[in-house]
Amino acid sequence: MAKEKKLVEAITSMEEDFTQWYTDVVKKAELMDYSSVKGCMIFKPNGYAIWENIQKNLDAMFKETGVENVYMPMFIPESLLQKEKDHVEGFAPEVAWVTQGGLETLQERLAVRPTSETLFCELFSKTVQSHRDLPKVYNQWCSVVRWEKTTRPFLRSSEFLWQEGHTVHATAEEAEARTVQMLNIYADFCEKYLAIPMVKGRKTDKEKFAGAEATYTIEALMHDGKALQSGTSHNFGDGFPKAFGIQYTDKDNKLQYCHETSWGVSTRLIGAIIMVHGDDSGLVLPPKIAPTQVMVIPIQQQKDGVLDKAYDLKDKLSKDFRVKIDATDKTPGWKFAAQEVQGISTRIEIGPKDIEKNQCVIVRRDTREKIVVSLDEVNEKLAEVLETMQNDMLEKAKAFLARHINDAHDYNEFKAIAETKPGFIRAMWCGDEACENKIKEDTTVTSRCMPFGDQEQISDVCVCCGKPAHKLVYWGKAY
Amino acid sequence: MAKEKKLVEAITSMEEDFTQWYTDVVKKAELMDYSSVKGCMIFKPNGYAIWENIQKNLDAMFKETGVENVYMPMFIPESLLQKEKDHVEGFAPEVAWVTQGGLETLQERLAVRPTSETLFCELFSKTVQSHRDLPKVYNQWCSVVRWEKTTRPFLRSSEFLWQEGHTVHATAEEAEARTVQMLNIYADFCEKYLAIPMVKGRKTDKEKFAGAEATYTIEALMHDGKALQSGTSHNFGDGFPKAFGIQYTDKDNKLQYCHETSWGVSTRLIGAIIMVHGDDSGLVLPPKIAPTQVMVIPIQQQKDGVLDKAYDLKDKLSKDFRVKIDATDKTPGWKFAAQEVQGISTRIEIGPKDIEKNQCVIVRRDTREKIVVSLDEVNEKLAEVLETMQNDMLEKAKAFLARHINDAHDYNEFKAIAETKPGFIRAMWCGDEACENKIKEDTTVTSRCMPFGDQEQISDVCVCCGKPAHKLVYWGKAY
Repeated sequence: MAKEKKLVEAITSMEEDFTQWYTDVVKKAELMDYSSVKGCMIFKPNGYAIWENIQKNLDAMFKETGVENVYMPMFIPESLLQKEKDHVEGFAPEVAWVTQGGLETLQERLAVRPTSETLFCELFSKTVQSHRDLPKVYNQWCSVVRWEKTTRPFLRSSEFLWQEGHTVHATAEEAEARTVQMLNIYADFCEKYLAIPMVKGRKTDKEKFAGAEATYTIEALMHDGKALQSGTSHNFGDGFPKAFGIQYTDKDNKLQYCHETSWGVSTRLIGAIIMVHGDDSGLVLPPKIAPTQVMVIPIQQQKDGVLDKAYDLKDKLSKDFRVKIDATDKTPGWKFAAQEVQGISTRIEIGPKDIEKNQCVIVRRDTREKIVVSLDEVNEKLAEVLETMQNDMLEKAKAFLARHINDAHDYNEFKAIAETKPGFIRAMWCGDEACENKIKEDTTVTSRCMPFGDQEQISDVCVCCGKPAHKLVYWGKAY
Repeated sequence: MAKEKKLVEAITSMEEDFTQWYTDVVKKAELMDYSSVKGCMIFKPNGYAIWENIQKNLDAMFKETGVENVYMPMFIPESLLQKEKDHVEGFAPEVAWVTQGGLETLQERLAVRPTSETLFCELFSKTVQSHRDLPKVYNQWCSVVRWEKTTRPFLRSSEFLWQEGHTVHATAEEAEARTVQMLNIYADFCEKYLAIPMVKGRKTDKEKFAGAEATYTIEALMHDGKALQSGTSHNFGDGFPKAFGIQYTDKDNKLQYCHETSWGVSTRLIGAIIMVHGDDSGLVLPPKIAPTQVMVIPIQQQKDGVLDKAYDLKDKLSKDFRVKIDATDKTPGWKFAAQEVQGISTRIEIGPKDIEKNQCVIVRRDTREKIVVSLDEVNEKLAEVLETMQNDMLEKAKAFLARHINDAHDYNEFKAIAETKPGFIRAMWCGDEACENKIKEDTTVTSRCMPFGDQEQISDVCVCCGKPAHKLVYWGKAY
């Protein structure tokens, strides 16, 4: 038992030290590694495979709505980045600059893209002339660079992987509709595939994207009660189009400015999966996104026929599932621990006694429930188990979220909740940035979003200044 | 007819000016656009979608052989890049350097990866300890940067998209086997999906990769008779492992150096597709790789019921094929020209007379053959047409290749062929780099590869110097 204990013991308990638990999990589950480039991380096979599954499924949802993928250069000339004033001010402090190409010093510095609004604007300004050219609904999967001082795997790194959608439309209404549509796609994807419920809404002006008219966000609640901004969708109005001259002739042959949006999610989502579903044994991956949905683990594999039967089982399962087998010479206990730390959704144990009874044992990673099933119907039963597990994980996360939303009616209550109860705080806000600043200073809590739709007015006055307030805000400590 | 003529006339005839024809096709087929970053290109939806299909199919072939995908940082510290001497000498002149991060000047310059051997070596040196850790068979899909003076879309640009596989093995034999295996996968993929036959073989020392012991290559023949190096696979032996200290303990507990390989194909393959299959009307895409396999074009669509029937047909086809419909208010002639210039494999014309007869007309892009089929069996018939077209395109390209290989037995013959006959020249070589240099100087022809297997000895002496020679070499003018 020495070895398997070692593997498990190496993970700090999440209640003891959540930050250390997170670091332990990403390393022990072999999701990532550090490189000699400060602030940049290596996506190892286990980590990258999760991203591949996110890409595949989200990309299909995008394409159903008419999104077309493109690829833009990774470099942006300094003069181009400067064309929209708010935008460059937002990003300049965190840009990496290329100043030498080959053996020559460049005449103009090139930014390694922190985001690609400016390049898309340049393309749109060349390719959009008439209302017939609209809308353009483009997206790219790529990496971007933001020079960060403090970094954490998947949550904040100098280079990260993401998708960035960029669209231009004839009307403000169409741009707004696309902005909200993409936010809803993000939220639906996270619920359906990642089993993570999202709080959706609009960012305050203080928290919105550099250059945007409106920023919408999905916010998830981590196990430690902190919020993770997990995706954003921006409506730029005609700000960028005016800065870049993106115009079209309408049906009456009049020249009009386009309206623009952008939207993105990143490898942060992997951080969300870890911190929503993980436990003290490691990662727990929702079956729909798990690179490996089931690990076959032979018991007493040295006995006659066990390995053969285990491989047969693996072959049979591989028709319907993403399956692996652990036929190494390690002990079953070690193999269980390895499967658990990696978050593989289920394992199937099969040994001589099982074979005798024509059965095997499915073990759920999330609940550790053991389900004995006949080998004749193992595929059907496993499909059921995985579906149930996916649903249960979402329901559990929903219940956790619901338990961690507290209403504050006045500032003392707000401060008390901020200090003692992890999670979101719902409270009214007058709309004044000064109140956001004061709250942040007093409690480290920031405004996460103003939820969509008709929301209960939980009081008439701002939780901070006491002036009349109509905006309900979700507040929280954030990653 | 004015408009459709304009679309077609804008393409220069390939016999008149092949270079201009190529430039016209990539623009008119809307594969790419230029950006304000010198030497970098924009992959527009039509171009990127081809790359997505290449990725999807090739990645599946990789994974069948146990390849795992990862993602490494895009930056390489200068000191890391310098660890293997030949390697850094090969790449230094074309590296883009980041010297500023945020508002600070970096203490050490960072190379924007021109290729990632050094980063993978660093990872392997940390993660490989025992023979149980071997092999590692990693790959990444990413972009790389090589600061090029003269660029051409898809063929040579300062940033391009590619995959780079990197593997470490316990033995030299295993590394060599993997190197050759991946080259064969490339060649098989190009034949099966891109309908491009390849000449496979080993590079001479002069032409091999910086730091490699052996480089293998697939070389395709373009319509103008020039060769395009389309993919390479390198066996590094233990050179990199020694420079980076990648060692493992074998079964006898002895410390051994690993053996390493790398292999890559890039968006150059899109250039190959264009220049092998294209014609004076534009692009011709093999059905297996075409983002759109069939364009439904209604004829007299203003007439009652035509559009409805065309949309019904599109829906029916979409179950089995990648299909689009052109229901814009442009003329059928314009639509045909647009479908042809984009290389969409087939179009289906459907008008009032067809509907009356319960039929439609499939038109092959490559031969323009028209095939009248019943609407009741259109899916089956289209599947047949696409399969036949895919095979015919490969056979045509094979025949073209075979017609453009000429043997040279002495230097006068070699020079005469080089001047008058486009294509590959087969000739014997003594193995001396001086002969390669002389041939290049005299004729601009370079050694492309030494083919695998037992090759006919077409003479006993070097075609250049007349000394004894045992190596058969494919020579050619190259992109």
